[in-house]
This record gives sequence, C-alpha cells and structure tokens, in this order.
Amino acid sequence: MTSTLLTGISELVTNDPGLGRGKLGIVDEAAVVIEDDAVVWVGPAAEAPSTDAKHDFHGRAVLPGFVESHSHMVFSGDRSEEFAARMAGEKYTAGGIRGTVKHTRQASEEELRANMRRLLDESLRSGTTTVECKSGYGQSVEAELRSLEVARSLTDEVTLLAAHVVPPEYEGDTEEYVRVACEEIIPRCAPLARWIDVFCEQGAFDEDQSRRVLQTGIDHGLTPRVHGNQLHQGPGVRLAVELGAASVDHVVHIDSEDIEALAGSETVATLLPGADFSTRNAYPDARGLIDAGVTVALGADCNPGTSYTTNMPFCIAIAVRDLHMTADEAVWAATAGGARALRRDDVGVVRPGARADLMALDAPNHLHLAYRPGVPLISSVWQAGRLKYSASEVKHD
Amino acid sequence: MTSTLLTGISELVTNDPGLGRGKLGIVDEAAVVIEDDAVVWVGPAAEAPSTDAKHDFHGRAVLPGFVESHSHMVFSGDRSEEFAARMAGEKYTAGGIRGTVKHTRQASEEELRANMRRLLDESLRSGTTTVECKSGYGQSVEAELRSLEVARSLTDEVTLLAAHVVPPEYEGDTEEYVRVACEEIIPRCAPLARWIDVFCEQGAFDEDQSRRVLQTGIDHGLTPRVHGNQLHQGPGVRLAVELGAASVDHVVHIDSEDIEALAGSETVATLLPGADFSTRNAYPDARGLIDAGVTVALGADCNPGTSYTTNMPFCIAIAVRDLHMTADEAVWAATAGGARALRRDDVGVVRPGARADLMALDAPNHLHLAYRPGVPLISSVWQAGRLKYSASEVKHD
Ligand SMILES: [Zn+2]
Ligand SMILES: [Zn+2]
Repeated sequence: MTSTLLTGISELVTNDPGLGRGKLGIVDEAAVVIEDDAVVWVGPAAEAPSTDAKHDFHGRAVLPGFVESHSHMVFSGDRSEEFAARMAGEKYTAGGIRGTVKHTRQASEEELRANMRRLLDESLRSGTTTVECKSGYGQSVEAELRSLEVARSLTDEVTLLAAHVVPPEYEGDTEEYVRVACEEIIPRCAPLARWIDVFCEQGAFDEDQSRRVLQTGIDHGLTPRVHGNQLHQGPGVRLAVELGAASVDHVVHIDSEDIEALAGSETVATLLPGADFSTRNAYPDARGLIDAGVTVALGADCNPGTSYTTNMPFCIAIAVRDLHMTADEAVWAATAGGARALRRDDVGVVRPGARADLMALDAPNHLHLAYRPGVPLISSVWQAGRLKYSASEVKHD
Repeated sequence: MTSTLLTGISELVTNDPGLGRGKLGIVDEAAVVIEDDAVVWVGPAAEAPSTDAKHDFHGRAVLPGFVESHSHMVFSGDRSEEFAARMAGEKYTAGGIRGTVKHTRQASEEELRANMRRLLDESLRSGTTTVECKSGYGQSVEAELRSLEVARSLTDEVTLLAAHVVPPEYEGDTEEYVRVACEEIIPRCAPLARWIDVFCEQGAFDEDQSRRVLQTGIDHGLTPRVHGNQLHQGPGVRLAVELGAASVDHVVHIDSEDIEALAGSETVATLLPGADFSTRNAYPDARGLIDAGVTVALGADCNPGTSYTTNMPFCIAIAVRDLHMTADEAVWAATAGGARALRRDDVGVVRPGARADLMALDAPNHLHLAYRPGVPLISSVWQAGRLKYSASEVKHD
C-alpha cells in the first residue's frame, strides 16, 4: 500500500466543518494523504506526515469531486435541432422525449454503453467523480432491463425511472402503463437498481399514479427519489416527503407549504438549473429553500432533451447568478449536497476514510467556479485515488 | 510549402454564403486544405484535391476560431471576493477597478505578460484564435505604455483605452485627467496601438470628454471603438456612430434612436453578455438590434472585475437563452461578427486566403455550442495553420 502526499494546495475544501473554516471546512495551504482509494490524512501542509510518494498542485485550489445525483445518460439520438427550434420560438413536431424512447429502444447495448461512457468521461473532465444514472427511455421490461444493465456496468448509483413518459403503445392509457410498470417492469428491474423514480407532473403521472409506482419500488427494496414540481405547482414535493424520498428534484414551482414540508424532512431538494436554462423555465427559489433550512443539492441533469450538459461548474455559475445562492452554498450543493441526495457519506467530502475523489482548479480558491463562468478550470481529477485526467496545455513553439 | 488536407469534417461552418448553406455558409461532409498559415481550398470532401499530408477530424464539426474583439487582459490582482460579495448582495468597499489600477501599476512587465499569456492560452483552449486587448488599468503615461507593450507582444489587435477610470491622483477632477489623457497619454501611446477606446458612462466620462478622447486618438492615427450604454441610457452609441467607430460595446441601455443610428452605420454593436451575467445587469436587446439590420458581434470581455471569462461558448449559450439570439446568429456573432468589429476579413471565416484558424468540436454540428451549455466541447484548435491545442482524454486502465 503506497501513501501519496498531495501538496501545494492553496485552498482545500473538505466540506467538514470539523477540519477547517465554515461549512466548507476550508484549510489554507493544505495537504492530503491518500492510500489506495481513500483519504487517510488532511491538514495544514506544515504538519503533513511523511509518505512514499508526493504530488505537487503548485498553488491550486483542491475540492472533493462533484457528486452528480441526477442524470439520464442511457439514451441514443441527438436533439440539437429541436433545441435550436425551441430557443428560436419555432414549432418542432418531430422528436421530443418519444423520439429518444424510439432511438433508445432501437440502439444496441454496446451503442448505449459507448454513449454513456463518453458522457461519464466528459463529466469527469469537468470534475464529477460520482454519477447517478436513471433508466427511463425504455419504458418496457426489455428496454428498461437493458438500460439498467448499461448504467450499472458504469456506476453504482442506478435508478429505475419506471414512469418517465407514457410510451407510444400506451398513448391515451396512462393507467394501463402504470399497471404494467407496477406489475411487470418494477418487479423484473428492481434487482438491478438502488433507487425508484417517477416523473410526477401534469401530462406525465399524477399523484396517485406516482405514489403507486414509488410504493411498488419500495416494496421491491428500492429507495424513492422524485421528479417533482418542474413545470407546475403540484403534489411531487409532498409525495416525496410522505414516502421518505432521498431527494425531490427540480422543485421549481413550489409554495410555502412545500418548503415547510421539506424543511421538516430528511428529503433533499435537488435543483437542476441546467434544465431551467435550456428550456427557459423559471429558476427555483433556492433562497427560500436554504433560508428555511432545507438541504439543497445541485445537479446537471444530463439528458438529450432539456439539459444536455454534464458541467457542474456551469450549474454553479447559474446557481449564483440566477438562483441567488452564494458561491459557497453552490459549491457545497454540488459536492456534499449531491452526496446527501444519494445518502452517501464517503463522497463529496475530503476527510480520513472518504474515497479519494479530488479535483484541482486552475485557480487559487473555490470562488473562481462562479467568478469565472464557462471557463474550464478543472486542471486535474483524481478518482478513488487514481489520477484520471490532466488538462492539456497550449503548444508554444 | 506543405499542403495538409483536413478531412472527416461532419459539418464545416465557413461564414461565407458563397461556399455553403445560409449565412453560416455550411458545408456538410467537408474538407479544407491549408498551406502554411492559410486556407487554400474549401469544399465537399469528395472533391478534395490531393495533398502532402492529411488530418482526420473523425466526424467532428469544424468552425473558424472565435474572434474576441473586446478584452482587458493586461492587469494584476484577483477580485474573487469582491465578486462573491456582490453576488451575495453584500457591501464590499475594498477593491473595485481602482484596486486593479493599483495592482497593475505595481506589477512588473514580466508579471503582466505572464498573466496575459495565461489568459490567451485559456482563450485558445476554448477556441478563440484572435484577441483584441485593451490597456486601461494604468491611466498614466508610464503605466499605459507598459500595458500596451505587453499587449502588442502577444496580439496584433491593441487598443489604447486612454479613459477607462479616473485614477486616484485625479479623483474629483475628471476634466484634468481628460486633459492629461489627450495631451500626454494619447500622443505618447498612440504609436503602440491600433484602436482608441473610452468608457462613456455616467460616473466615468461624459459625452464631451469621450468625444475629445476619441478625436485625439483619431488625430494620432487610431480608429475609435467605444464602451457605451452599459449601465445607463446615454450618448455612447450615437457618439460611436458620429465618429465612425468600428464598434460600440455593451449597448444594453438603448432606445429606438440608438438602434436606428446603428442600423444606418458601419458601426458594429458588440454584445458582452459575460459582463451582464457577472454583474446581474440587464441583457441587451439583441433581437431589436438584429431585426433592425445592425451587425452584432459577441465578445467575452475578459476582465477581473465584471466579466472574468474568456469563454465564447459560454457567451453563445447565454446569448441564445437570455438574449434570444438564434444559435446560428450567436455562432456568427462570435466568429464573423468579431472580425467585423475588428475590421478584419482574414479571420472569422474559412475560405481560400483566410488565416487557417480553426477549431473542431466534440460534436457533429455547431448547434451543440448552445445545446450543451458549459460543456468544454473544443477538441482541437489550429491557429495560423498550426495545431496549438488538443484536449486530453480520461485515462482508463
Ligand atoms: Zn430528470
Ligand atoms: Zn470593456
């Protein structure tokens, strides 16, 4: 077992208030020791123990890797023209989520895996080291099984999104699709997933249908998470709290009762500003949630229709500018917040015992993630103790 | 002289309607031949001539490099804490632009050059191959000379921003500083620059002062460009048109007369949404400008106070989402538009005779620059015929 000293850290965000300043647990001029896949020591560089090997970050800020708790990376097809038409205010009748279902059903497992691998690599190059991934573009036993197989071959955090959209063969008969989801899809697919999810929204699945889907998942050993209150005020948030969901995601159209329910619960509110950005939706009331004591996470919601981004720094910049989160709150929400939304305590933090998931910024402190919007600041990324990515330089000759 | 065939281009944006589809002059399944620093042939891959060497883009979209026509890269100091305080609605009395003037005056020429080099490299890694750079954090003969020396050692597009802020030694006597700018700074500094610029704004320089600064620059052989109408409705736009400025930049607070004046002129309106983003300013009326026939450019406005980004894809995403430009308009504005704002016809286009400044995207078409917000899509960048940057991959083992 080799121990490696990571040094030259201008600012270390630990997210452990016991280790440093404030909620982010900041240590200046810090060092970290890793052994195998884990962090074994954190503290001021001047007090670092001796180790077998050394890596110098040359004055960079270091943070825990981002924890993405909401993504839809198992799909096939490109919807760039649909996006461009929507932004231009034009009608676009082809495509939509049903187009993605069609292409995903037709794609081979290898094709789906290659696409997800590409998006995971892209996430990692932007600092994301833990990714939850949902099924939901299959919506048949066979296609959902295949999606979950792909997802679990590449990540531990797999969600069965049994009721995402009513597939074409059940058009006009949502009840019948919910019956199939509860009687066939969930029983067959549950062994491949950790989480059960539903899109609780006008035009998708109503409160009663959503409750049945989630309860069936629970009965099969899954823990619920909910897509709620994205496009309209509705029952999603309260249903999530009622069923003890780990997280309710989007939460854009909410009222004071929703905030109160969340504040009195263990359910995290996961905000997905990339989706609100790419659909010109309103932004959620992050201040209202945080000020009421709700635990808030940020996710990128990578999907080909409404938020085709994997980039957490982009979400942080939007969260600060347009959701009025402080830079500290946004950085916490994208790291420790995501970990809470996945009920994990081994990621989203840098402390002894945590998985050695770290990123270094081409910047002296974490504020630069909001101060420098759009700039790819991620200089290197370590996942489970291994250096997985180093940004390349411009060639001068 | 070696000729190189660039092939495997799924979609080529030429910005020459004579070469392809629409205003972007799009050629599908294209090839480009470069020789030395120039493009010598553009067309369908099937018709490409034979060459000495070959480079395969493997199905990527290729565009002209971005043309950044507005930046302030000669400075010293970090204002991340001021930014975080502003976003949190807190007072922050230290810092501001005067802090940057103080630090820039104290910095060595080597320090300033290293900082600008870092930001130019960062720009290039995001696809920007032409950068205009302003002085303006010196505001004394000696400090402006030094800033211009730094800028012109790294770019051809150098702007003397003689009147950016009233420096502390002239506090309360703007008139006296304008006299010094016109009688000392401009005459001494003009030989080092191509452009003369002024910050025409309430609290900075008024119409008459701005006209004197610009006219003095013109008298010394410089061509005007103007910071106008950023924070308030004012005379900036009309002054720019009156003096035949190449561009008026920001143009957020404008009225229908301003739009009319621009539409009847050769002056480009350069929009800088990064600045509006990072200051929570309003966004400019891009639709009103474009629909009236005004030529619109997009710039990133890299500066440490109000827009610390070099990232044109980020500006494109904001331009589409929040300024309601179409993706095509935004991509054109960030390439050909920037070239117009600098009165250049050798950059911002891919056609025989143009400088071989190209970028390849990890995407099949240019729409992805808006469809995939925040994602670092730039796969490789060629500047003057040389491969200057290739993105690195995630290591799997
Ligand atoms: Zn989702
Ligand atoms: Zn400026």
